[in-house]
Amino acid sequence: MSLGELDFIETLRKLATHPAARGLADDAAVLGDLVLTHDTIAEGVHFLVDDPPASVGWKLVAVNLSDLAAKGAEPLAALMSVTIAGDGVWEEEFVAGVAAACETYGLPLVGGDTIVLPIGAPRVLGLTAIGRGGEHVPSRSGGLAGDTLWLVGTLGDAAAGLAVLEADRHAEGVLVEAYRRPVPLLAAGRLLAPYAHAMMDVSDGLLLDLERMCRASGCGAKVDLDALPLTRAFIAERGVGRSARLFAATGGDDYALLAALAPDFDPLLSLSLPKGAILTPIGTLTAVDGISLFDGSGEVPLPERLGYEHHHRD
Amino acid sequence: MSLGELDFIETLRKLATHPAARGLADDAAVLGDLVLTHDTIAEGVHFLVDDPPASVGWKLVAVNLSDLAAKGAEPLAALMSVTIAGDGVWEEEFVAGVAAACETYGLPLVGGDTIVLPIGAPRVLGLTAIGRGGEHVPSRSGGLAGDTLWLVGTLGDAAAGLAVLEADRHAEGVLVEAYRRPVPLLAAGRLLAPYAHAMMDVSDGLLLDLERMCRASGCGAKVDLDALPLTRAFIAERGVGRSARLFAATGGDDYALLAALAPDFDPLLSLSLPKGAILTPIGTLTAVDGISLFDGSGEVPLPERLGYEHHHRD
Repeated sequence: MSLGELDFIETLRKLATHPAARGLADDAAVLGDLVLTHDTIAEGVHFLVDDPPASVGWKLVAVNLSDLAAKGAEPLAALMSVTIAGDGVWEEEFVAGVAAACETYGLPLVGGDTIVLPIGAPRVLGLTAIGRGGEHVPSRSGGLAGDTLWLVGTLGDAAAGLAVLEADRHAEGVLVEAYRRPVPLLAAGRLLAPYAHAMMDVSDGLLLDLERMCRASGCGAKVDLDALPLTRAFIAERGVGRSARLFAATGGDDYALLAALAPDFDPLLSLSLPKGAILTPIGTLTAVDGISLFDGSGEVPLPERLGYEHHHRD
Repeated sequence: MSLGELDFIETLRKLATHPAARGLADDAAVLGDLVLTHDTIAEGVHFLVDDPPASVGWKLVAVNLSDLAAKGAEPLAALMSVTIAGDGVWEEEFVAGVAAACETYGLPLVGGDTIVLPIGAPRVLGLTAIGRGGEHVPSRSGGLAGDTLWLVGTLGDAAAGLAVLEADRHAEGVLVEAYRRPVPLLAAGRLLAPYAHAMMDVSDGLLLDLERMCRASGCGAKVDLDALPLTRAFIAERGVGRSARLFAATGGDDYALLAALAPDFDPLLSLSLPKGAILTPIGTLTAVDGISLFDGSGEVPLPERLGYEHHHRD
């Protein structure tokens, strides 16, 4: 993240003083019972030029729905912004992926804009998703020291898939699919939201996103590396050692959910979670600032890079 | 508009089947009492590289608010998408213009996304504006043969300002201002909406936008060229002859409002319009398809180009 960009986001923050904006420090804005989010993705930055266009369409919808999931919101409608900088064939396939995701998650596309860019300009694709929140829309800032940190989903598959693609751009398989077609955890988010002191989606790397939750909540965290939920595909590709686990904890693109719940509340006992939902306690929030990691062998030094601020790859 | 792009918009239309989408044939989506719109503008397409960044920020907000104005909606909130492809200085000035427009029209900025593009990529700026509609949110499709066509605002200033800038990129003045800083007619739109059989904003040229209203409403229109409201600045620059009036009727970027009202309803007598509002009856909707133009000398042939589909100028 460049200095200019940091300055810029500070400028925006000064402008976004309405309480609905939540200081631009949350996954979404909350206006009355509406939950509003907008993510923009660009070619060469958030997706690869070689990614199948339909998978890019899917991803655009899914990353926005993941923000709604993190607030426990039900999808209501979306507006999409598409640039066309060629013959439109890529965009037709892209929209098929948008349609598949909208259909899967019950998100009606109700408007937007299509503009023409000069040939060769990178594609810039935006989506605003609007959802209806429940009685309690958890922010990132409500976490309390002593809370248990629960992770919904698994970590590392998408980052491992991206690494596989970077080595072989024709690669396929479960990990590549995880990178290209993230699954927004809407049902689990809705179930957890009423009980979550804080909740957010994990999109830029667990440790980086957890640091944001800690900063917003005014506390620190202890994370058990051995507890991080990994898939068999991930383990087959990268193993289960400390470096594999640190890779999973910092990789990004997981679209898992991270929730801070009271220590005496066990969602596995108390909630009827959707079939296949993977919920794992991975640590606790602490009164002491900063994140500390440990595993079976004791304390683990925090890696220098906690996640990805931006996936800039041009 | 390329063939690929037309195909693409047809594809989107098939996807946007929810009634809130209004068949993607309206200025905005209408979801319950919410009115939702998203416009994206790009460098070299919708604004000039030389345009002051603050004026681009103003315009991004204003063009979206104009869509809300056309539906009689009150601004509630906005989400903005910004690309950064340099040192961020341009964007800082851009945001000052966004802030000025948001402040002026009471539009809280509550969220959005900032992404980094490769240096040299054209800037792509998007805004989703969310408004609250009144009891009747006029569409483009409710016009009835016999309705009087009322125009709110004036025509041609922005297009004349753009022509002035194209001849001299350092030019200044009222017309250049009209091009760079359109004024969304929110108050007039709110007052007219309950009575409007159809209403839309005039952004791509009066005749092109009127054609869209006619097509949506299943009728035609007769327009009195002599009645078109022109400003003194416009007349000083381009005169009042037929070609000047045709220029004003097709120029685009006006952000005026066009409303179809019952012939016996005179808004000048019935409504407490905001001070300075310019309301002009410019013609009627007809049972016969197509648009016909006339002036004091009789019928005027319809120009070949009715407006701008896109302002692509790279």
